[in-house]
Amino acid sequence: MLHLVIMAGGSGTRFWPESRRARPKQFLTLAGETSLIQQAAHRCRPLIPDERTWVVTGSAHAAETRKQLAELPESQVLLEPCGRNTAPCIALAAFAVTQADPNATILVTPADHLIRPEPAFREKIAEAQSLLGDHPNASVLIGITPTYAATGYGYIERGAAAGGAFHVDRFREKPVRETAEEFLRTGRFYWNSGIFVWRAARVLELLKQYQPAIVAGLDRLKPAWGTPDWTRALAEEFPKMPSISIDYAVLEPVAAAGTEGGGVYVLPSNFEWDDVGSWQSLPAVLGKDEQGNTSVGPTCALHSTGCVIRTTDDHLVATIGLRDCVVVHTPDATLVAPRDDENALRELVATLEKRGLAHYL
Amino acid sequence: MLHLVIMAGGSGTRFWPESRRARPKQFLTLAGETSLIQQAAHRCRPLIPDERTWVVTGSAHAAETRKQLAELPESQVLLEPCGRNTAPCIALAAFAVTQADPNATILVTPADHLIRPEPAFREKIAEAQSLLGDHPNASVLIGITPTYAATGYGYIERGAAAGGAFHVDRFREKPVRETAEEFLRTGRFYWNSGIFVWRAARVLELLKQYQPAIVAGLDRLKPAWGTPDWTRALAEEFPKMPSISIDYAVLEPVAAAGTEGGGVYVLPSNFEWDDVGSWQSLPAVLGKDEQGNTSVGPTCALHSTGCVIRTTDDHLVATIGLRDCVVVHTPDATLVAPRDDENALRELVATLEKRGLAHYL
Repeated sequence: MLHLVIMAGGSGTRFWPESRRARPKQFLTLAGETSLIQQAAHRCRPLIPDERTWVVTGSAHAAETRKQLAELPESQVLLEPCGRNTAPCIALAAFAVTQADPNATILVTPADHLIRPEPAFREKIAEAQSLLGDHPNASVLIGITPTYAATGYGYIERGAAAGGAFHVDRFREKPVRETAEEFLRTGRFYWNSGIFVWRAARVLELLKQYQPAIVAGLDRLKPAWGTPDWTRALAEEFPKMPSISIDYAVLEPVAAAGTEGGGVYVLPSNFEWDDVGSWQSLPAVLGKDEQGNTSVGPTCALHSTGCVIRTTDDHLVATIGLRDCVVVHTPDATLVAPRDDENALRELVATLEKRGLAHYL
Repeated sequence: MLHLVIMAGGSGTRFWPESRRARPKQFLTLAGETSLIQQAAHRCRPLIPDERTWVVTGSAHAAETRKQLAELPESQVLLEPCGRNTAPCIALAAFAVTQADPNATILVTPADHLIRPEPAFREKIAEAQSLLGDHPNASVLIGITPTYAATGYGYIERGAAAGGAFHVDRFREKPVRETAEEFLRTGRFYWNSGIFVWRAARVLELLKQYQPAIVAGLDRLKPAWGTPDWTRALAEEFPKMPSISIDYAVLEPVAAAGTEGGGVYVLPSNFEWDDVGSWQSLPAVLGKDEQGNTSVGPTCALHSTGCVIRTTDDHLVATIGLRDCVVVHTPDATLVAPRDDENALRELVATLEKRGLAHYL
């Protein structure tokens, strides 16, 4: 059976003041009617019901996750006592899922990306399942067909065709501008979306081979699964696991090993994808009005262009003569900043901390 | 006895979103701990108790006035059914005050100016009273000693000295830049503050001479004073009165008539005065921090200079890289605008009206 594993380890304040430490990006409704994590949980619903949907998140975000995804069985919200990157996260999920369903296939996806339209995504996942039918030991990645020479994403280089998919030739780090342009030109590169489909048991086998320390930890945890001792046991074992990404830990060596590892495949996307990385990405996902502004909530942007203005339904934001700025009103804090300066936003967050205003973070 | 008459006819939205149609500038706390109208009512308290303090305001502002000046007897809040400029306003007040105290002297002052320190102001008023002791028919004006070549105020040109005061030679309209500079150079000109001291009965005599239509209206109103019919009667008579300023209606002709009219005197100020005309005037009255910003409430102005940032105690406003802007947060609306563009603010207000957002005005 196909299970959904949502990696919701995101933290951070790139969407401050909308995002807070206690409410990172995945909990925000940035486009559409529901939050990103709700979209992640529901986008595959016709394919994967709530009973087979799992979330891995930090214990600090347990309450918000359970609130936003109240329909999920409580045992399917897995709480990391600390962040250890994606390999231990996926290992933990694969472990839990196989306890419930030893033959499970898992679709692993980040909680905080935007994907539209949903049917196209589900078709792609069905393709991945079909590929796994032919190659049960395969690791299938969803590659995002690049729309511009992005320097902010890792890339997947495709090799030989295999049905509608391709063998993965190799993984490439975030490139410099020229390399990214070359990648785009060749048509052989995809953005690494962090969306994977594979059999849960196979993930654990590969982890055992390439990251034995992680699986050893899982083995020690096994007796506590489903008992009141679980939280304590996890708090002891999880922090010992190496903090490493699934790409670096498993996918790169498996791809390098060729068909021996069961194969790593990339399925090119035919849907719209955005990782909504900062305020600046909102115009792309929400569109702009005639003045080049992107507005959410009641606004009046006079002689203002290139602005992102976001407010709550009960609060008007009026701007005059503002250019390429972001203005965000929330119930307890407002930001006015240049739209494209993420470093400055980081500096602001540090400054708030320094000035004893950390309760706004 | 000395009575205080506060002219609180102000309307408008130059301090939008802080000021609203229902809550114009006089009701705002812009500097100090209380609103401008509260400061106007209390600044002379040791000299003039609440029992002799009167307010003339528009009926739309009755509730807010009574709320902010709850200590005043209700009968001393006089409600204009419509705005008719200062001559009918002062006429109405002089009429009401003389009903209570036929020998009253009245200090007439706008409700929305900032004056500091209060003792200096009170001393000046005491000087005016003393001048009236010698010249019971005089009209005494407080002239503001100019600190720069302002083009936004009317000027009073002084003539011969008369004790610590001067005879008023003539009134001058808002000058152009060069004229204002000349005014400043000569040292013979004062800003017309709209603060007057005279005997109430004398005001009515002068009005009878120069604006008989106003006094005829008052005569028709007299039988209704203190009866339940007052509001209806005033609503009938007041709109018929000519809409004219006291300067133009009375003071200019009296000054031109020389000592025959009892004399018009100007007493130069020795206190700090500001009419707090717009957001831009806040730095002058509140001061600036090291970055050249003027802040009220919890703010964090990163790489921002020359800004006026005002928020409520429970709401943080953070700015990055903002220059010479005003950012004002209120519970239901936020403004981000250039600090010095009052025309644009007017345009914004018109735009809000046009777009069906007049409930924010």
